[in-house]
Amino acid sequence: MRVSRFFMPILRDPPKEAEIVSHRLMLRAGMIRQSSSGIYSWLPLGLMVLKNIEQIVREEQNRAGAVELLMPTIQSADLWRDSGRYDDYGAEMLRITDRHDRDMLYGPTNEELITVLFRDGARSYRDVPRTLYHIQWKFRDEIRPRFGVMRGREFLMKDAYSFDLTASEGKKSYNRMFVAYLRTYERLGLKAIPMRADTGPIGGDLSHEFIILADTGESEVFCHKDLLELEAPGNNHGPEDDLEPVIAPWLDKYAATEEMHDKAQFERDVPADKQISARGIEVGHIFFFGSKYTDPMKCSVQGPDGALTPLQCGSYGIGVSRLVAAIVEASHDEGGIIWPESVAPFKIGLINLKAGDDETDKVCESLYEQLSNAGQTVLYDDTNERAGAKFKTMDLIGLPWQIIAGPRGLKQGKVELKNRATGEISELGLDDVVAHFVGART
Amino acid sequence: MRVSRFFMPILRDPPKEAEIVSHRLMLRAGMIRQSSSGIYSWLPLGLMVLKNIEQIVREEQNRAGAVELLMPTIQSADLWRDSGRYDDYGAEMLRITDRHDRDMLYGPTNEELITVLFRDGARSYRDVPRTLYHIQWKFRDEIRPRFGVMRGREFLMKDAYSFDLTASEGKKSYNRMFVAYLRTYERLGLKAIPMRADTGPIGGDLSHEFIILADTGESEVFCHKDLLELEAPGNNHGPEDDLEPVIAPWLDKYAATEEMHDKAQFERDVPADKQISARGIEVGHIFFFGSKYTDPMKCSVQGPDGALTPLQCGSYGIGVSRLVAAIVEASHDEGGIIWPESVAPFKIGLINLKAGDDETDKVCESLYEQLSNAGQTVLYDDTNERAGAKFKTMDLIGLPWQIIAGPRGLKQGKVELKNRATGEISELGLDDVVAHFVGART
Repeated sequence: MRVSRFFMPILRDPPKEAEIVSHRLMLRAGMIRQSSSGIYSWLPLGLMVLKNIEQIVREEQNRAGAVELLMPTIQSADLWRDSGRYDDYGAEMLRITDRHDRDMLYGPTNEELITVLFRDGARSYRDVPRTLYHIQWKFRDEIRPRFGVMRGREFLMKDAYSFDLTASEGKKSYNRMFVAYLRTYERLGLKAIPMRADTGPIGGDLSHEFIILADTGESEVFCHKDLLELEAPGNNHGPEDDLEPVIAPWLDKYAATEEMHDKAQFERDVPADKQISARGIEVGHIFFFGSKYTDPMKCSVQGPDGALTPLQCGSYGIGVSRLVAAIVEASHDEGGIIWPESVAPFKIGLINLKAGDDETDKVCESLYEQLSNAGQTVLYDDTNERAGAKFKTMDLIGLPWQIIAGPRGLKQGKVELKNRATGEISELGLDDVVAHFVGART
Repeated sequence: MRVSRFFMPILRDPPKEAEIVSHRLMLRAGMIRQSSSGIYSWLPLGLMVLKNIEQIVREEQNRAGAVELLMPTIQSADLWRDSGRYDDYGAEMLRITDRHDRDMLYGPTNEELITVLFRDGARSYRDVPRTLYHIQWKFRDEIRPRFGVMRGREFLMKDAYSFDLTASEGKKSYNRMFVAYLRTYERLGLKAIPMRADTGPIGGDLSHEFIILADTGESEVFCHKDLLELEAPGNNHGPEDDLEPVIAPWLDKYAATEEMHDKAQFERDVPADKQISARGIEVGHIFFFGSKYTDPMKCSVQGPDGALTPLQCGSYGIGVSRLVAAIVEASHDEGGIIWPESVAPFKIGLINLKAGDDETDKVCESLYEQLSNAGQTVLYDDTNERAGAKFKTMDLIGLPWQIIAGPRGLKQGKVELKNRATGEISELGLDDVVAHFVGART
């Protein structure tokens, strides 16, 4: 993509309304713009990151055997009356009346709708286990939206729902999602710790939040320091494998959110030098709630013995749009964002230091073409901006690599290659800079 | 994907509520389910088709130089008061009041929001021309939703918006989208004819609808028969090319929707044996409306002479979810759907005629693995269903190819390969059937 044909409105000055660094940097880098309180447009650069994260989430859901579908944003209020949750949800639910005076709502979550869909589509024990998920926009009418897309009103969430014949099978589905979440965060470059959590309006008695430690987090969390050192499980598990031993290292050590914190147990079980109490950002939340929805909504299948059995269920959420901000919170410096390669909007920023100079233009065009043809994603700054402004912009938007080409270096046939994360700069010949990336592909 | 782990609730009997064939087949094939009047869930098979269509639309938008972003579904009513359209839109607009009693709405289109975004991000003539687009759910509160996703209330639309300095530049952007649309429909296997059309609540004085001829179409259309024979333009146009001559063959011949029909002109300009008057389904609508929104919303840039100039704009819509139904209308037989390969949810259906038979299972597993590893998409029916039911299901869901493996053929080392569109069946050895697809990839 050429900057001259892109839409990336950079803000030079820090926007006043932004209280936290991710909000500030996402606005400055031209990733998002607020259109109403807590409701954002995703500009091209922001959308690219959002889609990269969404795709990683999707791949790990599919790997765990979950099947993707897509439920609508607008739901009937009657569905929520059937489950008994219509009144529970309070003012956070955006309630709507349509032209025929029917009560509707903008879905904040989808337990009801998926339960009805599955009930109408499944007949017998042979139709389970099944985990279904979708990645769809949700709305929660927060009383005080803030922190940009970290706590917006319209947000993108992946929510999965498991259906099993027995509670012990259901627990296996829960564990499978537990592993998928650990793998997802690892691929996003995040260290997320699963913590025992309150179940709130979703219900059930087993629940974990996945938490990133960050000073800007909204809640207090408590955990054993060694949890920060654990590596995510590999991807070599079959669909029938028992994953209890795989997740045991996370369950064995103390980790709890504020609501579930047990001070006495924390101080007894965790040595003083291993006690972490910190602020945390929730980036995922999983629940097992048995037949809480399948009972009232009559979602049963015929078991092997012929008897109708209400299914045992869990639900599993990841805030995809919130993750964009969480990654910026975890990965930035005073110059701007530092994207992990897995989610970067482009891998390479190519800076033409003297647009209009024949030789520099020719070399940049050639590099742009060679790298693009080799499958690399390149943002080529071909504008007439001053060099200083181009450097600042590239640092701000945080692409992992910068290639800097100008007349002075080109006299020796050299360009500069800068690693955004380390700041390291090397001088390379034109073939070598291409080889650096094209070699790295295989 | 194995059918035993998928979610594809087939209906054996034609659903009563479906009046047209696409609605009936999409319900029967387990592609969609209605959750409220005119609001649908996309089950896995339906979502796959929806995403394939979305991706083709996206690729042709990108090829035309349009840049993708994403605007939210919920908009502020004030934005529409600024443009003067808040009252114009009538009861089709879903109006919402949030917890702070602010007037909001579920966007039926995005001229206002994109105009504000572009206004706040663009400064000078160097920031144009630009065409921005998004693919997002919209809501129109139809008084009588029907025909399934053909005329639903919540629907997925691609809408693009062009910004130019002058009307003649704006016309070039319009032509570029015109070509992108022709190419998009060709890739979808559809013959869509651009017709002069009324501009309705979007406004402006230049507009074309892209229409597919079909008996179930909602409106009457009139055109020259030769338009059905034209082939879509190639993909070899540069971003600066003048596309007027490229689209001339479509503009030279008579084609108009009912609202724009001129009977006298039609009968004068089109020979009697070339006159087509038929029912049509609208699958796209493009508009050029100059400064209709940029004037009231003060979206101007500084021209080369330093003077502020309101930008000249157009908007360009394709109903992505409606296209799923339109393709089914255009491509089916008494057995079910016949997907064009470009949008098929899977390319190959693999039928195991005797699940549980060691040899048949072994061969099917091996074919499934070889084809999947070679990048082919395969739906493997590994269930215990009767052969007859499996055949019916595969025909119904319309995958382009079926591989049928059973003990009888395997005694001679043969499987059957069936082409869904032609019904042609050939007997092939195991290596040959793999070679048929893996060879076809390159």
